[in-house]
Amino acid sequence: MSEEVVQNKKVTFKGYIDDVPKETDMELKLSNIELNPPPQGSAALLVKNLYLSCDPYMRGRMRDFHGSYIPPFVPGQALEGFGVSEVIHSDHPNYKPGDLITGFTGWEEYSVIQRTEQLRKIQPDDRIPLSFHVGLLGMPGFTAYAGFFEVCSPTKGEYVFVSAASGAVGQLVGQLAKLHGCYVVGSAGSKEKVDLLKNKLGFDEAFNYKEELDLNAALQRYFPQGIDIYFDNVGGDMLDAALLNMRIHGRIAVCGMVSQQSLSKPKGIYNLFNLISRRIRMQGFLQSDYLHLYPRFLEDVSNYYKQGKIVYIEDMNEGLESAPSAFVGLFHGKNVGKQVIRVAHE
Amino acid sequence: MSEEVVQNKKVTFKGYIDDVPKETDMELKLSNIELNPPPQGSAALLVKNLYLSCDPYMRGRMRDFHGSYIPPFVPGQALEGFGVSEVIHSDHPNYKPGDLITGFTGWEEYSVIQRTEQLRKIQPDDRIPLSFHVGLLGMPGFTAYAGFFEVCSPTKGEYVFVSAASGAVGQLVGQLAKLHGCYVVGSAGSKEKVDLLKNKLGFDEAFNYKEELDLNAALQRYFPQGIDIYFDNVGGDMLDAALLNMRIHGRIAVCGMVSQQSLSKPKGIYNLFNLISRRIRMQGFLQSDYLHLYPRFLEDVSNYYKQGKIVYIEDMNEGLESAPSAFVGLFHGKNVGKQVIRVAHE
Repeated sequence: MSEEVVQNKKVTFKGYIDDVPKETDMELKLSNIELNPPPQGSAALLVKNLYLSCDPYMRGRMRDFHGSYIPPFVPGQALEGFGVSEVIHSDHPNYKPGDLITGFTGWEEYSVIQRTEQLRKIQPDDRIPLSFHVGLLGMPGFTAYAGFFEVCSPTKGEYVFVSAASGAVGQLVGQLAKLHGCYVVGSAGSKEKVDLLKNKLGFDEAFNYKEELDLNAALQRYFPQGIDIYFDNVGGDMLDAALLNMRIHGRIAVCGMVSQQSLSKPKGIYNLFNLISRRIRMQGFLQSDYLHLYPRFLEDVSNYYKQGKIVYIEDMNEGLESAPSAFVGLFHGKNVGKQVIRVAHE
Repeated sequence: MSEEVVQNKKVTFKGYIDDVPKETDMELKLSNIELNPPPQGSAALLVKNLYLSCDPYMRGRMRDFHGSYIPPFVPGQALEGFGVSEVIHSDHPNYKPGDLITGFTGWEEYSVIQRTEQLRKIQPDDRIPLSFHVGLLGMPGFTAYAGFFEVCSPTKGEYVFVSAASGAVGQLVGQLAKLHGCYVVGSAGSKEKVDLLKNKLGFDEAFNYKEELDLNAALQRYFPQGIDIYFDNVGGDMLDAALLNMRIHGRIAVCGMVSQQSLSKPKGIYNLFNLISRRIRMQGFLQSDYLHLYPRFLEDVSNYYKQGKIVYIEDMNEGLESAPSAFVGLFHGKNVGKQVIRVAHE
């Protein structure tokens, strides 16, 4: 057999870290790959990766800690994350060459996918960008949907606060809350993001937390009646300030804590006493606990998008070479919208 | 009219404080009271107080803060709290002289009660001590019942941890959890209390937190499989340690935070990240939100007690003179069981 041998660029993980990720924690490597069909009986796929997703949770896989819900990366090997890929060869009965899929893949041009259980086949639709399957219609979008509807128990007319509001999750939380009839305020870290929240994403109000000396005062200003629902993507000082501004029977969905992801000694939270006096429910969650709702989510949110009821902002980087800096940028708020890497053109 | 004039000893509140309560924050005063019937149309009661309850939440009423669920005490006037009283005169159609009632009353020998909406008439029962109506069958017992069954969502076989476990609330939480088929470990602050938990209250295990250098290590020792339910009566370091030992989908009922009640700058909580990875629900609550369950509680817990399925430990002080030191003792763990003041013999 004389199969095609091609170059396979990879972004590899150098080794475990304790600090904020740096570009030098990853390494671009070149190798070759034979584009052979996977061995018979392997049920594996050989795929060409089109889009890769940069997500803050990946920071957790850079620690040498095996007790979490997802194992750490393997030093020397390509990073792994959500992607959109095209099937080149398949030994799996459900997939054939040319199929578009989304699920876990490697940070490389071509991947062999052995674990096919969590893959999802994409039904191509001209009205929906393919890359949305790692954003609006992927894990971040589903996190927003499950977190808002299942964890926050929203009611029409409630006051909703979203932090990291222009990010991959926050932008959809805010729009779903608006569609649900809530009053929504978002925080973000630049004037550009605040403008997007107010002018493009339809938030009622938005503010730049970096310009606020006193987060408690800022929240009092935007929520003179208090907050019913805080969708917390950051943790830390913003969570502490929100605790001072919750209404009775308020709910806090604890999602990302991106501000604390890289701190080996996280910041203290001092205002938990309010949980009692205001009878607040504070709940951590992972979207993976709600996968039974995924089909409904996919239909609802696809339709909202096609009907023009929601928009979704992506920050698209070109080429695997740009992946390390794009990933590192997440922890400095550099991304505007959902951070995606285009590995190859469709 | 020549009504009887009697002496009315009172424990008055001297003024707002920022620190741990001291005996000198209260003052014993003598005055006289005419045992007249309340004015016609007032719907008020004149009562003789038999038992008064010392509860940690009362500390919150010693702050000059009016935004809480209960207003502050009024300087110069008698403290107020739950009590068991005998009706001497009544202008209220539901009550007659000789009735025994429980509800808010003054820290004094005789009180005029204007707000009768939240009073409850006691059906005397020789098998149940009257003082239990401010403990096992009163607010602390109901806090345990509502918190455990409504907030903790317990399932048979789950691992339950209770802090301040020999206290007014904790001792019932542990016993209800045992009756529900859970494995129960309690923490307390002395060898005497630990012995009570293990030998009298039926906890599976108990430990003295003051003898543990590392609370995380202690919890790992007692819960090698992790904790499903933490009924938190203390907050602070114990809450932080419990967060490290919760199981996936664990629940934390946030009740008293007695360790933090008197700190104007409470301790920080550092381990909230576990809320996400372990999908923990942490919920503050007040028993007053569950009053619709009170009749069922009263029946269930009275029956358990009369059937010998649960016990209840009281720390009874004699005389109003002892009330300030008994109250202050709560914040130093001096009470063994529910702290009650006997004001007059039945």
